[in-house]
Amino acid sequence: MASPSSLTPPTVPIELHVCNREKLLTSIRHHLSQSSRPLHGFVLLQGGEEQTRYDTDHIEVFRQESYFAYLFGVREPSFFGALDIATGKSFLFAPRLPADYAVWLGEIKPLSYFKERYMVSVAYYVDEITKVLQDEYQGSGTPLLFLLHGLNTDSDNFSKPAEFQGIDKFDTDLTTLHPILTECRVIKSDLELALIQFANDISSEAHVEVMRKIRVGMYEYQLESIFLHHTYMYGGCRHCSYTCICATGENSAVLHYGHAAAPNDRTLEDGDLVLLDMGAEYHFYGSDITCSYPVNKKFTPDQSLVYNAVLDAHNAVISTLKPGVSWVDMHKLAEKVILESLKRGGILNGNVNDMMVERLGAVFMPHGLGHMLGIDTHDPGGYLKGIERPKEPGLKSLRTTRQMQEGMVITVEPGCYFIDALLIPAMGSPNTTKFFNHEAVGRFKGFGGVRIESDVHITANGCKNMTKVPREIGEIEAVMAGAPWPLEK
Amino acid sequence: MASPSSLTPPTVPIELHVCNREKLLTSIRHHLSQSSRPLHGFVLLQGGEEQTRYDTDHIEVFRQESYFAYLFGVREPSFFGALDIATGKSFLFAPRLPADYAVWLGEIKPLSYFKERYMVSVAYYVDEITKVLQDEYQGSGTPLLFLLHGLNTDSDNFSKPAEFQGIDKFDTDLTTLHPILTECRVIKSDLELALIQFANDISSEAHVEVMRKIRVGMYEYQLESIFLHHTYMYGGCRHCSYTCICATGENSAVLHYGHAAAPNDRTLEDGDLVLLDMGAEYHFYGSDITCSYPVNKKFTPDQSLVYNAVLDAHNAVISTLKPGVSWVDMHKLAEKVILESLKRGGILNGNVNDMMVERLGAVFMPHGLGHMLGIDTHDPGGYLKGIERPKEPGLKSLRTTRQMQEGMVITVEPGCYFIDALLIPAMGSPNTTKFFNHEAVGRFKGFGGVRIESDVHITANGCKNMTKVPREIGEIEAVMAGAPWPLEK
Repeated sequence: MASPSSLTPPTVPIELHVCNREKLLTSIRHHLSQSSRPLHGFVLLQGGEEQTRYDTDHIEVFRQESYFAYLFGVREPSFFGALDIATGKSFLFAPRLPADYAVWLGEIKPLSYFKERYMVSVAYYVDEITKVLQDEYQGSGTPLLFLLHGLNTDSDNFSKPAEFQGIDKFDTDLTTLHPILTECRVIKSDLELALIQFANDISSEAHVEVMRKIRVGMYEYQLESIFLHHTYMYGGCRHCSYTCICATGENSAVLHYGHAAAPNDRTLEDGDLVLLDMGAEYHFYGSDITCSYPVNKKFTPDQSLVYNAVLDAHNAVISTLKPGVSWVDMHKLAEKVILESLKRGGILNGNVNDMMVERLGAVFMPHGLGHMLGIDTHDPGGYLKGIERPKEPGLKSLRTTRQMQEGMVITVEPGCYFIDALLIPAMGSPNTTKFFNHEAVGRFKGFGGVRIESDVHITANGCKNMTKVPREIGEIEAVMAGAPWPLEK
Repeated sequence: MASPSSLTPPTVPIELHVCNREKLLTSIRHHLSQSSRPLHGFVLLQGGEEQTRYDTDHIEVFRQESYFAYLFGVREPSFFGALDIATGKSFLFAPRLPADYAVWLGEIKPLSYFKERYMVSVAYYVDEITKVLQDEYQGSGTPLLFLLHGLNTDSDNFSKPAEFQGIDKFDTDLTTLHPILTECRVIKSDLELALIQFANDISSEAHVEVMRKIRVGMYEYQLESIFLHHTYMYGGCRHCSYTCICATGENSAVLHYGHAAAPNDRTLEDGDLVLLDMGAEYHFYGSDITCSYPVNKKFTPDQSLVYNAVLDAHNAVISTLKPGVSWVDMHKLAEKVILESLKRGGILNGNVNDMMVERLGAVFMPHGLGHMLGIDTHDPGGYLKGIERPKEPGLKSLRTTRQMQEGMVITVEPGCYFIDALLIPAMGSPNTTKFFNHEAVGRFKGFGGVRIESDVHITANGCKNMTKVPREIGEIEAVMAGAPWPLEK
């Protein structure tokens, strides 16, 4: 039997994390020099811990904390890691495991294993942190630790600074590290890009697999199962970047469908559009891809109208993206293209600039155009310290308002949804009622929505689309009818 | 294309939870009467909350806390539930969701939806708990809440009593509820048994699917992927009972292999035994099944020797199990059958009773024979209050020492492993060195181990094996060679 995949999981490149550490050292030394501070002290991060479910001994599969993963690439729980700013020396501190670990959980690896595997200068045990860092410190006075503490602007949660017995023997700096390390993560290295590309490749292929297997009468979760299986079986991706959104019919207007209270459990019906937002993660680096298409393999005129409105927006943004471009402008460009299409399609009336003034775009696309992507699906760094979120509808949902820079990876995910909770007030409002062709909008009751999402890498002169799925209606219909992908010329 | 499954996910039986609530009410009233306490007050449980990963907005798929799931069957997070001991009235308290939930996460369901779906007497919002329970209370004095607080004897963690604003208006009892509710969970109703049976059926079928698809050169995680896909695609099982253990070669001697630090990433080699411990969960109720067999489809004489030693133990236990039998005796029976087989096979020498006195069985089977199974894989109730764990090797790992009762569901999972960390000391110890045929044991260096695990339901006169996978060597070799399962007569 021929493999349904043309891909093989790449070797995990641990030198990627060596480069990440060097980048941080350069940045933090630069920052300290600029502020006339001594080039002494340690960056100290605490890795994640395994979690049990409630009071039971059920353990969720451990996934490393993202900042720690960025610097050290360690897949095991309960580690600490440090960098000596003066010397550049890197340290891993491994948990000291009880003897019966060997019986229940596997070989107790020696410290030399971790030193070699993770390419650090030295490895010790966690209970040695205080002594080791005191001994290594080459500055004067109390040794200084730079700990990670800062706001995640997507979750509004704060990262947790390292804690260990003996921390009272050190001075601690809670403000310097977080913005610098976050900014390192914003610009991706070639090694990072290669992993995000693989996550995109295997996820793109899995989306095509779903496209081929979808049938009326299936459950939404079966699409999730096909996707997860393809990316794990052929891509070695044990983790997903986020919970799969497998939304059909009206559900496709629920932006984050698929969670436990809306668990992809509807039956696919003839005439449904599906909106599938699914991406796999490989060695911590993720992908985030959305495809929208009809279950019965043939777009209706209304489905084509909305789909092409979104595709035109997606393509317009991608052909404009380059360093220096403002993400807010890209969001507005996408809105404008969608509104123009809806006007051309007879759903809206009037002047599109007037619609823009009234923020009508946010009625159809209430979410932001996209977000940074990396070790987190919503990768940090969207808002630099002191930058406030916009307040206007639609724009307030933007996960970043930054100017694009070479090396950023960002999702381009315009959408057009028919959401009663937004449409009904807008159609009734004195400021915006005039824009709607009320009869035409009525046709879209229960239509759901369309989202098209690709992951792009900002290059020196433009951008590269890392996602490789059928996008043109002709391409989608051909692949669903059995054509190979990519299409033969 | 014929479906690779003969199964269909059953309708979720919410009346199961109505019965569970009635059972608890009966038990707690009986207990209160026996202790001459008034039949007043409320059982109050807090459901689980969604968790984000570290500081990010990445949300893990929510899985309800198990005691709450038992009583209310609610799949959504952030609920509370109560039972009025005086009237039997049942209450659900739903979180009050913000308006934009409708845009991002789906329809905001009215309280009537939850009342009907979960078959409770009434539904309110969480912020109404204090007022509602004060109004409903029919006793005198301050209303009393029975909260859940007690030790999980598998994890050594304590369950978390409900917390809400206004709890200071109530008296609370932290000791009564936990043992009574736990004991309710120990004895399964027919509706619960039907779900555990379905979880077993789909998981058994998935094990057979893996058996058919396994090939030299695959990665261990590909077996996990095939299993997960089969149980989700055809069984609607989004959650697994526990992390899949896909251990091959030496790894099969690592009892809880498969976690993040040992992530099923070895390549299958010709001559390997595989040990696959995988079980799906359906509507909270789980399964827990282990199959062991050679990757290359043909048992060698040594593999047969160890496999049949374990199978004989498995079968001996199942044919002895019935109400009144002690689980410690079953563990010892399994040990004895295994030691006898190893002696017959020329691996051990001497008197088996003498070996039992030296606890030699624990060298080959360091884990307990099995555990209660239900909404948790290690279902609670293994040790009644005041009962201490045994201290002897092997026996100290027992998750229960109880006498069997009709309605219990328990795993029978004898194993025989060649674990250097245990064998080397035992072979060197003056008390036990004489039992080993050192040359023969040498043949098993790197062999790994065998485990055979079935889920059984204790009936009035015996027990029923709920697991339906090939067990005899002839059956396994036939299925791996392409025979249908069950085998045709």
